[in-house]
Amino acid sequence: MAAVKIVVDVMLKPEILDPQGQAVSNALPNLGFATAGSLRIGKHVELELEADTDRAALDQATRIAETLLANPVIEDFTVRLA
Amino acid sequence: MAAVKIVVDVMLKPEILDPQGQAVSNALPNLGFATAGSLRIGKHVELELEADTDRAALDQATRIAETLLANPVIEDFTVRLA
Repeated sequence: MAAVKIVVDVMLKPEILDPQGQAVSNALPNLGFATAGSLRIGKHVELELEADTDRAALDQATRIAETLLANPVIEDFTVRLA
Repeated sequence: MAAVKIVVDVMLKPEILDPQGQAVSNALPNLGFATAGSLRIGKHVELELEADTDRAALDQATRIAETLLANPVIEDFTVRLA
């Protein structure tokens, strides 16, 4: 068993409005930045799991993401090794 | 000018407590998962900027992150091409 570092990124699905991202996007010109073509904000989760293989850790992280980190109705997520 | 896709990940500094991550971490055993060695939650920002080069887009995204996306007192961020 080794500690495997994993990253889960959770984003709202493209068809779901992202008011937080919209607010940041609207603030850019006011602060002297060029307008962003798009800007969306999600969650970035860094976790460390004990597992025999990277594959097993990724599987476990995927189940955790489905259950606890993402709302599958409105969010997509990606799981990868850190 | 081309649209450059960039990802900014913002995390609380390691010495700052992360109550949201702690709450998720504490919930894992109750849901039948193994305990996580560590689990921290930050922000994942995907944005698209118009720029002549990737380098220019990354520089602009770094300034945006410093100004608007991260609180440099308690947070670190990384900027990369998507």
